[in-house]
Amino acid sequence: MAFDLRDGVRRTDLIGVLRAWTQDAARLTQGRGGLADLQHELAEGPSRLTVTIGFGPELLGKIGLGDRTPEWLQPLPDFPQIDRLEDRWSGGDLLLQVCADDPLTVAHSARILSSGVRDAVLQRWAQRGFRRAVGTDPSGQTQRNLFGQIDGTANPAPADADYDQLLYSDGADRRWMRGGTSLVLRRIRMTMDTWEEIERSSRELTIGRKLDSGAPLTGATEHDPADFEAIDQTGLTVIPTESHMARARPRVRAETILRRPYNYDDVPDSGQISNSGLLFASYQADPVRQFVPIQQRLAEQDMLNTWTVPIGSAVFAIPPGCHEGGYVGESALEG
Amino acid sequence: MAFDLRDGVRRTDLIGVLRAWTQDAARLTQGRGGLADLQHELAEGPSRLTVTIGFGPELLGKIGLGDRTPEWLQPLPDFPQIDRLEDRWSGGDLLLQVCADDPLTVAHSARILSSGVRDAVLQRWAQRGFRRAVGTDPSGQTQRNLFGQIDGTANPAPADADYDQLLYSDGADRRWMRGGTSLVLRRIRMTMDTWEEIERSSRELTIGRKLDSGAPLTGATEHDPADFEAIDQTGLTVIPTESHMARARPRVRAETILRRPYNYDDVPDSGQISNSGLLFASYQADPVRQFVPIQQRLAEQDMLNTWTVPIGSAVFAIPPGCHEGGYVGESALEG
Repeated sequence: MAFDLRDGVRRTDLIGVLRAWTQDAARLTQGRGGLADLQHELAEGPSRLTVTIGFGPELLGKIGLGDRTPEWLQPLPDFPQIDRLEDRWSGGDLLLQVCADDPLTVAHSARILSSGVRDAVLQRWAQRGFRRAVGTDPSGQTQRNLFGQIDGTANPAPADADYDQLLYSDGADRRWMRGGTSLVLRRIRMTMDTWEEIERSSRELTIGRKLDSGAPLTGATEHDPADFEAIDQTGLTVIPTESHMARARPRVRAETILRRPYNYDDVPDSGQISNSGLLFASYQADPVRQFVPIQQRLAEQDMLNTWTVPIGSAVFAIPPGCHEGGYVGESALEG
Repeated sequence: MAFDLRDGVRRTDLIGVLRAWTQDAARLTQGRGGLADLQHELAEGPSRLTVTIGFGPELLGKIGLGDRTPEWLQPLPDFPQIDRLEDRWSGGDLLLQVCADDPLTVAHSARILSSGVRDAVLQRWAQRGFRRAVGTDPSGQTQRNLFGQIDGTANPAPADADYDQLLYSDGADRRWMRGGTSLVLRRIRMTMDTWEEIERSSRELTIGRKLDSGAPLTGATEHDPADFEAIDQTGLTVIPTESHMARARPRVRAETILRRPYNYDDVPDSGQISNSGLLFASYQADPVRQFVPIQQRLAEQDMLNTWTVPIGSAVFAIPPGCHEGGYVGESALEG
């Protein structure tokens, strides 16, 4: 969910919102009801609930702290070749991301967190997504999206030496962001009708990976490294240079991002049978350095663009955590 | 999902739809892709998938078999005291209910089943609902709705001597329905904003049950029988006569229905923070005899009506199953 500050909201009001969210997030993730929650039973069994708070590009400026806005905290550049962005899925001053293994927990937590702050903020959008239910696929394979692609393979691993550097801010840009990260959220409509018109071999060439295993077309298993130089008997690269994988792969290690996509499958518009796609969520220390170059390449050329349409876009700074008794965002708002 | 027959569709076309659904339901529930499914990997791990097919009130009449329509297969009577029905959530010639423990399985199965039959039917509505994720609550307690109520306690049990009689048609009305059942689906909006204004004690009096355990106000545990005669020190019944439970309880055993409600929590309208409610689904041999008297009482008087608004309504005959090689609905359409 994203929220906009109401007119006239000041720094102290925003602190009130963040204190309320921090306190209720702490309680709800521990299986206790929110502070003003008359239905604490709905909070029992928190199902690995997480609550993530983010700051949009205009938030700090609206409360007179614009000089604390990180350089990179701005809407993504336009990608006119592909973007068909709708306001109702884009932007926002505050992000509230609520995730859990159980949909009732998500619904109740989102309700509690949203309902107590209505004096200060107005809900701008809400998007619902899903990953596979816990226990559905014990293989540990990366999940599939609604096109059937295994999606999210090439992620940095916590064991990587540069994992923290890729993911978390070192505070060099804005000191309050030290230990925080950023979220880029893109709502990508997937046109199921036309995707289903192409055969499996065309789908594999479009992605650059095999549909069954998620292996690169030059490999045998999902995590095999791709060989972008390998040539087939016709003299073309086995992995097409315009394939999604070839275009998306980082040109330098600094372009590495952590993707955590969610599928969406909402109620279709009249006359349609699907309203489906991906909530593409990526985390990185600096979206301008790490994410934008990838998106730029994909906008310029990516066989997959024929079947995907970005209809929403938002960027948020995710402040670092806080100590008990504090609140998320205090490093930006205090002092 | 509900579908309407397109103009000009005949009996043989409808048989084609039902054959396709039956074959694909058999395949998908076994973890195999649908017949025209180019992405069979999405069908792996079917997660207890079920597919239920239903016939709406006008279906058989539209293909010249109106005399085979059961007497009770008609829209519910109007309940003008409470109903604010919207066409976009009501009615339909054909029902396709797709349930599984995993949302990706539901999305893929719904897509496969819907996409192959577009020449013959037009999607009328789609509704998405959820129950708690598998493993969330190992206690076996009946699930809660978004008001926090334990909802669905007083259901008939398979061990009851009259279970089959209550649930399944004996074919006395229309012989082809022998072994089938009926589904009443009511989309009930729950006004969270005003519900949250009342205290727990008022909520308990509204329902007639305790919020924590789901026990009747005269009992200690969920499945304790309610004592509707018990009087408190003020001389009033402990369970208010206008409470939801007191009004809903069957006056005769024949009014017993099998409820299987789903919560919904969709994207809110602009300016709102919730778009929540219940997909109330009830199964019974004869909805006119079993369900309508209950709904009539609730429409006349039910304290809960202050916070609930029926916005969708549909009734379907659920044909009996078929033998391998046959199709669901053949007992109605053949001979």
